[in-house]
Amino acid sequence: MTRERLSLFDTTLRDGQQTQGVQFSPSDKHQIATALDTLGVDYIEGGWPGANPTDSAFFEDAPKTRATFTAFGMTKRAGISAENDDVLAAVLNAGTPAICLVGKTHEFHVKTALGISLDENTANIAASFAHIKAQGREAIFDAEHFFDGFKSNPDYALQAIHAAHDAGARWIALCDTNGGTLPADIGRITRAVIDSGIPGDHLGIHTHNDTENAVAGSLAAVDAGARQIQGTLNGLGERCGNANLTALIPILLLKEPYANQFETGVSVEALADLTRTSRMLDDILNRVSLKQAAFVGASAFAHKAGLHASAILKDPTTYEHIDPAAVGNARIIPMSNQAGQSNLRKRLTEMGLKVAPKDPALARILDQIKAREAQGYSYDVAQASFELLARSELGLLPDFFEVKRYRVTIERRKNKRNQMVSLSEAVVVVKVDGKKMLSVSESMDEHGTDRGPVNALSKALAKDLGRYQAYVEDIRLVDFKVRITQGGTEAVTRVIIDSEDSTGRRWSTVGVSANIVDASFEALLDAIRWKLVQDGVT
Amino acid sequence: MTRERLSLFDTTLRDGQQTQGVQFSPSDKHQIATALDTLGVDYIEGGWPGANPTDSAFFEDAPKTRATFTAFGMTKRAGISAENDDVLAAVLNAGTPAICLVGKTHEFHVKTALGISLDENTANIAASFAHIKAQGREAIFDAEHFFDGFKSNPDYALQAIHAAHDAGARWIALCDTNGGTLPADIGRITRAVIDSGIPGDHLGIHTHNDTENAVAGSLAAVDAGARQIQGTLNGLGERCGNANLTALIPILLLKEPYANQFETGVSVEALADLTRTSRMLDDILNRVSLKQAAFVGASAFAHKAGLHASAILKDPTTYEHIDPAAVGNARIIPMSNQAGQSNLRKRLTEMGLKVAPKDPALARILDQIKAREAQGYSYDVAQASFELLARSELGLLPDFFEVKRYRVTIERRKNKRNQMVSLSEAVVVVKVDGKKMLSVSESMDEHGTDRGPVNALSKALAKDLGRYQAYVEDIRLVDFKVRITQGGTEAVTRVIIDSEDSTGRRWSTVGVSANIVDASFEALLDAIRWKLVQDGVT
Repeated sequence: MTRERLSLFDTTLRDGQQTQGVQFSPSDKHQIATALDTLGVDYIEGGWPGANPTDSAFFEDAPKTRATFTAFGMTKRAGISAENDDVLAAVLNAGTPAICLVGKTHEFHVKTALGISLDENTANIAASFAHIKAQGREAIFDAEHFFDGFKSNPDYALQAIHAAHDAGARWIALCDTNGGTLPADIGRITRAVIDSGIPGDHLGIHTHNDTENAVAGSLAAVDAGARQIQGTLNGLGERCGNANLTALIPILLLKEPYANQFETGVSVEALADLTRTSRMLDDILNRVSLKQAAFVGASAFAHKAGLHASAILKDPTTYEHIDPAAVGNARIIPMSNQAGQSNLRKRLTEMGLKVAPKDPALARILDQIKAREAQGYSYDVAQASFELLARSELGLLPDFFEVKRYRVTIERRKNKRNQMVSLSEAVVVVKVDGKKMLSVSESMDEHGTDRGPVNALSKALAKDLGRYQAYVEDIRLVDFKVRITQGGTEAVTRVIIDSEDSTGRRWSTVGVSANIVDASFEALLDAIRWKLVQDGVT
Repeated sequence: MTRERLSLFDTTLRDGQQTQGVQFSPSDKHQIATALDTLGVDYIEGGWPGANPTDSAFFEDAPKTRATFTAFGMTKRAGISAENDDVLAAVLNAGTPAICLVGKTHEFHVKTALGISLDENTANIAASFAHIKAQGREAIFDAEHFFDGFKSNPDYALQAIHAAHDAGARWIALCDTNGGTLPADIGRITRAVIDSGIPGDHLGIHTHNDTENAVAGSLAAVDAGARQIQGTLNGLGERCGNANLTALIPILLLKEPYANQFETGVSVEALADLTRTSRMLDDILNRVSLKQAAFVGASAFAHKAGLHASAILKDPTTYEHIDPAAVGNARIIPMSNQAGQSNLRKRLTEMGLKVAPKDPALARILDQIKAREAQGYSYDVAQASFELLARSELGLLPDFFEVKRYRVTIERRKNKRNQMVSLSEAVVVVKVDGKKMLSVSESMDEHGTDRGPVNALSKALAKDLGRYQAYVEDIRLVDFKVRITQGGTEAVTRVIIDSEDSTGRRWSTVGVSANIVDASFEALLDAIRWKLVQDGVT
């Protein structure tokens, strides 16, 4: 069966740049364009050349892509010819094979924002696209506010897009610019456009997520006959973002009726790299990846409910709508207060701990988890502390060393130069092999900056552990998360520490106490004990 | 025109609890239930009594709500009667007016997960609902995997839900448990259910966001005739989350065809509090609120694109699909320094600080805020610290007292009874009216429990402030939030402290440092200084 071609138009580098707090450098744009090209989108919209220095710099040194590289601009202004419009000239000068121009199709906007007559606007659209065609470029019309325009004056909205189409625009992208049109209306209006004579394989859909319906709106337009989808990676974009290609691409490739009906430029191999691509974008933007993101989020295939987790163990298709590997993601069965014994056994097996079904230790471990979660502990993330707890109940955790006591002092006072400075100092007393060791450390780093009491404590604890010392020296504290939570009736502090060693291994531990330093100490201790277990120390 | 009633079923406290990393305490649940009741949902599903200690504790001391309070459980197991099923008994024992039971409707799951015959499963469903009805409770059937079940064996899926309906279930909630069904299929299958004889006003829809279509799927079911929507605040829930009521409620109240067709329990006034409700939930979970969230996100009405921002100044309806105030949100326009200043003046006026336009202090305050936000401070919440910063630049902040130095000691060691205990002790040295005062305090509370170093420090600081003492004695520390954030290139700790006094006044202050105790101390100091300013002390 021949499948129809569906075009994917990416605007991460243009509309995605309108995300609050996002500012791409030319090198960021270069890296993202390369990733998009590898993913297999058909068009990459790079920005608005001439409108800001970063975009201009990017176009001057644009990457070579298989995808059609596209510059964004607007239709010519009233009162001058397309040839003499310097804003349009700057867009053409970028030299891209395709050009996308935004223009008005909503009567209210023509009158309010532009202050010109409807006919004048139509003429500007026609002249702009004729000019682009004459320059031998592929032309795309970004029909701004098309859906609102159609609802208020359908004749004019259609007249505006037909002007672009007749002047040679290859694609008419129907834009729901303010994101307010619901999917059913998008479908109905897209069908009306096709009925008016613009074929579906010349129609694109450009939605925004202001009602959380951007993906559904795009699908509704495709169902109605549109054959190009415009969107961004991770749903970046103005206000609530654009249609999220990171959700749309797996839907189109994996779910019916789309998978059988359409072909896109994205291969099965590229799809299997989608999660990595999505996280790479977050890395470039220095954002925390959204755990709940569809398909690519860290929680997208995390089965917390006990009923779900136990069924997943029998057959993953019971609670998964797709195989997580298809999008490069992975299944997670977190330990939580909802988990059952079979779930627990599976986790233990993954940790190399074989336990027979109905071993009474299983119930003890679950009870311990429940009791500790009621105190404020959380084992969803702190897998290393969970393993230590299980090993302890199974009699598989050596008593490596004993902490007899510790003391931390935090002081803030004037230094010799009459500046207020703070400093922490920690003393830890540990008993190893019957021998008592005292270690002391302060919180100053190599730049003379106070890194605080937990830093001092961590350094003192890892300073002298006798025969264990060689194993703990390469532990590095990479992240530290604190939240105030409820332990029974009192507020307590939960600290989660992420550690790393020289092999690149990374693990998370948890501590809980009303005293934040004590909670941190508990998590630090777990971090060391887990490392000793992993390294086979007895 | 009479509008049809649409029922809203909230499951934040049950399915929302399945969010990875989320764990509600009974007091969290109490607070959220109260907020949901104020919002105006019809049903509040509180959890699964008997399944875990937190849920059981919550039901034992459940809040009185106008909304129908609902307990969750599962249909009776095979081989025992409904009367003798202890799991079901625990659910009934919670004493809620409504009970929602999950049960299988998908042939594959009956055979794979339960390992019983289809008829046996149907009989279990019928017996369970008959039992609940006989106890005089309202019954809701959570028809698990209904859409997948219908696609694989429509006759059985229908038979299962008809069994529940015939046995007296008030609502049949059609669940897309794995989140894989797209909106068009949800609409088609919901229509088929109505055609099979279950009226739409007995049908609910329960979707998940695994394809980013949970909101659209819910709307598709309503379009097909279903009259109950199940969802969660902020879209919390297993994997990618449940249908987001925070998006659905404004759609139903503000957008057509829903606004004219339906009536819900949510009033226009409650809708105007939606943004605050959404952020309160994030506060309870200590999560950063999603900026891009539809309707309630901080970026939802932020207009970054130059073309948009200039049109918005002419007429907000040019780029806004609704008035942000309708959902309690606000418009953000990236401001020139000029616009920034007029906005700042407005804020200062609200605090009773009259400043002339173009006063050079305005630019200084904006520069200070920018510089401090780059260090990790945040003044969105910490209004009291913001006011102190502004007063300082305006020369309106007295030097009440000076902190010369402080020292905090945290110790953990064995007590006389050979138990490990921790204790903190703080010494603060303050100069008031030229006189040096030393105060010391420890962290033990009246029950002999260590409350940690910040508690000790707070008590020592407020112990002896000379002539200011009378003003600070009634300050109570009511909340304490810690977040690790980025200050320049280094990770720093941001502490936000909420304080309260005997008049019920509540205020928030912020401190930032690599040293968590020092950050807390800074916020504590601001809390005291703000109180002295408010009380008119000079």
